[in-house]
Order: sequence, then C-alpha cells, then structure tokens
Amino acid sequence: MRAVDIIARKRDGLRLSAEEIDSFVQGFTQGTVPDYQVAAWLMAIVLRGMDRQETIDLTLAIVHSGRQLDLSDIAPFVADKHSTGGVGDKTTLVVAPLVAAAGVKVGKMSGRGLGFTGGTLDKLESIPGFRTDLSVAEFRAQLRSVGVVVTGQSADLAPADGKLYALRDVTATVNSRPLMASSVMSKKIATGTNGIVLDVKVGRGAFMKTEQEALDLAALMVDIGRGMGRSVRAVISDMNQPLGRAVGNAVELREALDTLHGRGPADLRQHCLTVAGQMLLVAGEARDDAEACARLEPLLDGGGAWAKFCEWIAAQGGDVSSVEEPQLLPAARIVRELPAPRNGTVAGVDAQEVGLTSMLLGGGRAKKGDAVDHAVGVVLQAKIGERVEKGQSLLTLHANDEATLAEAQERLLAAYTWSDDPVSPPPLTHQIVT
Amino acid sequence: MRAVDIIARKRDGLRLSAEEIDSFVQGFTQGTVPDYQVAAWLMAIVLRGMDRQETIDLTLAIVHSGRQLDLSDIAPFVADKHSTGGVGDKTTLVVAPLVAAAGVKVGKMSGRGLGFTGGTLDKLESIPGFRTDLSVAEFRAQLRSVGVVVTGQSADLAPADGKLYALRDVTATVNSRPLMASSVMSKKIATGTNGIVLDVKVGRGAFMKTEQEALDLAALMVDIGRGMGRSVRAVISDMNQPLGRAVGNAVELREALDTLHGRGPADLRQHCLTVAGQMLLVAGEARDDAEACARLEPLLDGGGAWAKFCEWIAAQGGDVSSVEEPQLLPAARIVRELPAPRNGTVAGVDAQEVGLTSMLLGGGRAKKGDAVDHAVGVVLQAKIGERVEKGQSLLTLHANDEATLAEAQERLLAAYTWSDDPVSPPPLTHQIVT
Repeated sequence: MRAVDIIARKRDGLRLSAEEIDSFVQGFTQGTVPDYQVAAWLMAIVLRGMDRQETIDLTLAIVHSGRQLDLSDIAPFVADKHSTGGVGDKTTLVVAPLVAAAGVKVGKMSGRGLGFTGGTLDKLESIPGFRTDLSVAEFRAQLRSVGVVVTGQSADLAPADGKLYALRDVTATVNSRPLMASSVMSKKIATGTNGIVLDVKVGRGAFMKTEQEALDLAALMVDIGRGMGRSVRAVISDMNQPLGRAVGNAVELREALDTLHGRGPADLRQHCLTVAGQMLLVAGEARDDAEACARLEPLLDGGGAWAKFCEWIAAQGGDVSSVEEPQLLPAARIVRELPAPRNGTVAGVDAQEVGLTSMLLGGGRAKKGDAVDHAVGVVLQAKIGERVEKGQSLLTLHANDEATLAEAQERLLAAYTWSDDPVSPPPLTHQIVT
Repeated sequence: MRAVDIIARKRDGLRLSAEEIDSFVQGFTQGTVPDYQVAAWLMAIVLRGMDRQETIDLTLAIVHSGRQLDLSDIAPFVADKHSTGGVGDKTTLVVAPLVAAAGVKVGKMSGRGLGFTGGTLDKLESIPGFRTDLSVAEFRAQLRSVGVVVTGQSADLAPADGKLYALRDVTATVNSRPLMASSVMSKKIATGTNGIVLDVKVGRGAFMKTEQEALDLAALMVDIGRGMGRSVRAVISDMNQPLGRAVGNAVELREALDTLHGRGPADLRQHCLTVAGQMLLVAGEARDDAEACARLEPLLDGGGAWAKFCEWIAAQGGDVSSVEEPQLLPAARIVRELPAPRNGTVAGVDAQEVGLTSMLLGGGRAKKGDAVDHAVGVVLQAKIGERVEKGQSLLTLHANDEATLAEAQERLLAAYTWSDDPVSPPPLTHQIVT
C-alpha cells in the first residue's frame, strides 16, 4: 500500500480502511512516510473529513504508535479529565485533588499550553520545585500512594500524536474534528485511565466558536472513548469570557488556591464542581449531579480538597510553603490597576484578546519551547453583567516590562464592551454530553 | 506574510493575492518554505481550486523563480508546441522540422516522459549521439542557424516548476487544472517563445479522461498564455487508442521517419499536419487550415521536412546515418508477432494499457532517473475499426527479456476489445481552442 495512493483516496473523498490509516500513521512514526506526504494527507482529511469509523481507526493507530499503560493493578478505576483549552482555565488545579479527596484516583498527563490558551503544567510550575517530568514508574507510584498525579505527556505514549500535532500546527490543519478528536482521545486511551471527562470549551476564547461545533466534537470524542471501553462524558462550557478572574500562571494558581479554600470566584467554583461531579459520575461514585455535589462541596469548604492538594504538590517536589503562603509565589515587578474608562455594565470581555494579552506580557508561548514568565498576567475585576463606575479598578495587570504593559493596557480596554442596561452573564455550562 | 496563513486562506476557499502566491513560490524555491507546507498548500489548491487570476499569478510566480529567455534578437517569431502526454505521441519529431521547413523557427524545451506516456527526449535519444542537454547559448545558436531545436528543460528556467512537480508526484496533487496549466505555461513563458500550440490529449491514454476536462484545461492555458502576450491555440486530440502504430522509443522514431518521408500511418500524418498547421496560424504564416495544409503537405511529400530533420539531428550531434538507415537504430533482441485471437473488428485498444506495457518492457520510467531501454516497444498491426482474421498478426513486440515479454503479451491481448460489426474509428481532433 503506497502512501501516495492512500493520500489520493482521501483526496477523492473515499473511506480509508483501518489498515490504510494504520500503515500511514506507523510509517510516519517510523520515518518511512515523509512529512510532506503526511501534510498533504492531513489537508485532504481537513477538507474531505473522516467518518466515525475512520476517526476511531485513526485514534487506534495513534495509540498503537507507542506504549499503552495498564493501570488496572493500581486501582479498579482511574479518572482523567481533559480541557480543549480556554483562557483562565485552572480547573484541573482544583478538580484533580478534589476528586482524589472524594476517593477516585486521578491520573493525568497534560500537554503544554500553546497560543492564547494557558497550560496546566505552566501553572503548576509556578510552584517552586514542582516537577512535571515524572517517569511512567513515578506516575504509577504516585497514583497508587497519593491518588492524584498530573505530569507532562510521556514521550513513549502516542508518539505519533506529537509528530502529527507539530506538523498540523505549521500546515494549517489544526481545525479538523477527526484530527482534534483522535489527538485528544489517543493520549487519553494510551494513558490507560478508565473514565474521562472532557471539558469542551465554546466561544470567543476557545477553538470551537459555536455550540454546534463544540457539541459535534464532544459527541465524537465520547463516541470514540466509549467504543474503546472507556466511560466518557463531556461538559460543553462557556469560554466567551475568561473562567474566573485571573489569567496568567501564578495569578491563576492563587485563584485555584482560593477555590480550594472554599473561596474564589463563584463561576470557577461552580465549574469545578460540575467537572468534578461528572468525574464521580463516570467513576460510578455518585448517581446524579445532586449526589455528586453533596459529596464535593464539603471537601472544598472543609479542607479535604486542600489537604489532598498539598499532599499532591509535595509528592511532585513542589514547595508546599509557597502554596500555603502565596506571597512566596513568583510575583511581577509591576502591578498596575487599570481604571474603568466609563460607567456601565460589562457586556463582553473577549477571552481570546485577554489570552493574547497575557501571552504578550510573557505568560504564554507563541511556539513550542518558548520560555514562560510565571509571574505575569491579568486579573479581571469586572466580568460580564457586573456594573462599574468610571475610575473604579477594572483590571489588575502583573507585568515585568513597561513597554509590553502599555500595549497590554490598550488591548485589554479594547477587549471590553459595555452596556448602559443590565446584562445577564452567559451560562457556565451549555450542555452535558453523555 | 506567514506561509501557514497563506495555506489557511486557500484551505478556507479564499482567493490568494499575487503577493501571497509569489511569496509562497519564491520561499519554496529558496528553501525558506519547507516542502511539508507546500504539500499542504498544493492539496488545498487541488480541493479548493484557483480562479483564473490566481492561476495566472501562480504561472508568473513560477516564471519569476528563475531566468526568462528573450529570443527577440534571433527572430521576430519563435513557435513552440506542447503535448499534455499520450501514448505513441511522436508528433514533435515530425512537426518541429516540418514547421521549421515552412520558415517558422521552432524552439522547444521538453520534459522527460514519466509513467505510461513516453517522452520526446527519450525518443530522440534513440539516435546515437543525439544531445538533449544543450546550454542556453547552444539553444539560441541552433535556433538562429538551423531554425529548429529541441532540448531538455534548462535547470535555471522556472526551477520552481521542477520542485513543485516532484512534490506533486508523491503527494497525489498532480490532478489539478490550475496546477497543470501553470506548470505547462510557466515553462513555455520562461522559454521566451512567441507562439505556442498546445496538444491536449483526451481519453483512456491521457491524463484528461473527458472532453470537458480537456477543454477546460485547454481554455485555461490559452487564456493564461494570451494574458501574457503570447499567441496560443490548443488542439484537443483523441488519445483513446495510441497515436500511430508504434509505442516505444526507437520504434516510434522509425514511424516518425516514415512520416517525414511522406509515408507512415494516416492518423499520425493527419495529426502532425493539424498541429503544424496551428503553428503556422499562431505565427501568422497562414490564414486558415486549408492554406496551412497546402504549405505543409508538399514539405512532407517532397523531402523539405526530411532535409530539415537531418540538419536538426546533425546540429545536436545525432548520427544522421542511423536515421537514413533505420536498421542502425537500437533494435531489440526478440521481435515477436502476436496473432489475433479471433476474427473481428477492433473496437478498442486501451492506450493506457499499451503505454504501461511498453513501460513494463523497459521503454518507460516508473520514477525520475530510471534508465530507459530505447529498443523495446510495441507496434499495433490493427487499430480501431480495422478487421483482422484469427491468426493474422495483431501486434509486433520488441523485447529484450522473455519474462516481461510473456506478461506483456497477456496485457496487450487484454487491452483489445472486439466487435463483429463495423466500428468507426474515433475522431482524431475533437476541437480547436483559439
């Protein structure tokens, strides 16, 4: 089976067989199918699509490109979560220890943030000493002993995914439902977890701009996961404005710490309870949302989640004193309040612009391997539906450089839209896909 | 302008500007845009298309990737012809000296044959000593002195085309009207000729399978050429069965020699007169087909074209005695007659199968750089509409190896279809596009 013939079949809109997809993916992984052939194939997939079975076969082929973990000797059920990427999304920092505190083991391998969306690993690395390069043996050991572990993607799991993603990024082939779904699900399947909650973001600050796109992607991923014997649910959650108030690394970590202490922004707390609740449901540890919530709220408010968080951070080498006393976390040289330019009610906060501004300040990476400044970021003092008076603080900027600060201020003010009338905030959760 | 953004625009079906196309093509030529980005871009062009202006801009960008010849100091008008590739297509061997004998200078740079269609250069190289690697200075000098020159494509003319074609060949992006049209026309424009006759083949043995496809491609190429100030016409000619009777290198050369002596198969003679006539028309040397034919027929029948042919071959180092006495040309060790398996009228001779069989015998190349056996080939003793009796010779095979000969016999017999009723041969010329 020649690679060029497989490309031609997809170019012509034909179905590819499992064998064709597998030979292409393994050829790419092993270097016998060159990247230019894969690039043409990816573009053909973007424009011609793949059906459900092809997408499942592609997911399997990516899984088969590397090692696959078996965690069944550690616990009968290990849960995982995955976010499609948003702005201010520090959910994992709260949810992972919260679910572990509720008795469900949480094992997660995470990718790096790229572009305007931040990455969980970067946020965790705001904690001095915290390691995100655990070996598989360390991942397994900590999952067993602590019940929660979040580390970087192991290079020998689904290696084709990393190669494919690097190529998609530079060939304008990122936006494709089958490619996105197989990328996410192959890593989750390879990690060997039993249940997965997908947090599929929709809106201005997400890759999916419409609810229908998000729903289609979520349904496909749930379908793939279930077809491979996993228990999967998806939360379609709003990402028109940032989640919570903080966008950056250490500033988001601080907000997560607040939430783990039973405080923190109401939307973040609610979203964490929703995602964690779905994780209890996939694990069979709750019968419905109400029961899940009743299990989880006391853990946030009573210190159970916080205790598990500290245990987790310590296990991965993090300096627990810096999360106990957050003033020890990386801090920016310049902290500046930006006053509201007018009286009014916030009608919109363009999440993508806020994310891009945080990146501009140094908090994100434009390309793989870029260094990240953990200290910088933005804290929104007013979000959609909140009324402010002119001159009142609208935003707090954390920066290390006056020049980028000036540009950031301008962009952030332009990211706000205003109304003289009351405005309802958007729903946090659009739908749950089961 | 980032390459990835230009890919994304075409992926989304948007028009590319001249600047975008030029920056992409020059980036590829200079090595700053890697082949995987070009591969994705090419697939997006195949599936999203390019409009007329984009195709002209792509042609210009390919021309600008290298040197462009100016032949105006040699003659006020230099003509060229190009065939989109067929089986048994030795037209250039006859037409180039014929048109030159009629007083119109003919300068042609030719590509190598690939796949089931043969290449003019390979056929010419059946002549001992014949050089196809002339420098630009030699090309110009011979055009001036002899009035006819056919050599290989100069590497510094339209270099982007060669790089693009090599990539298209392995990424299933050959079949695209804008890519095909810009590839052909960029080389013709770069060569600096004033008038071009395109021989666009249609049918089983051509890249274009339907008349509409051929017509659309021809109209686009004529349009591009005219937009660049060239005088262009296209002949849509039939390629369901091979042209003439011989398919191979030396065997086709022999048939061309016959035709230059006023003999040869009627269909080949007629097609050569049609193409040569169009060349006189683009050059303004005849007012209509009848006048052109009246100029050309005496040159075939009276030895004028033959004399010019010998002068041309000698100028490029070819051994004239071998064309004067064709038994000196490369000959195969095995010459075998294949008898007709039945009584009947030939209803079809699958040109592509005949081309593939000639390639199988060693007469063509599967990939660039493969060596070619000039001696081998096939001569069809019966073509569509001709009646044969069982046992009468149907084909003559010229081979150097018994094993491939056996396979070739089987494939050739299967390439024939039969009728008990009279069958009309297909028209030679479907349309002329002006």
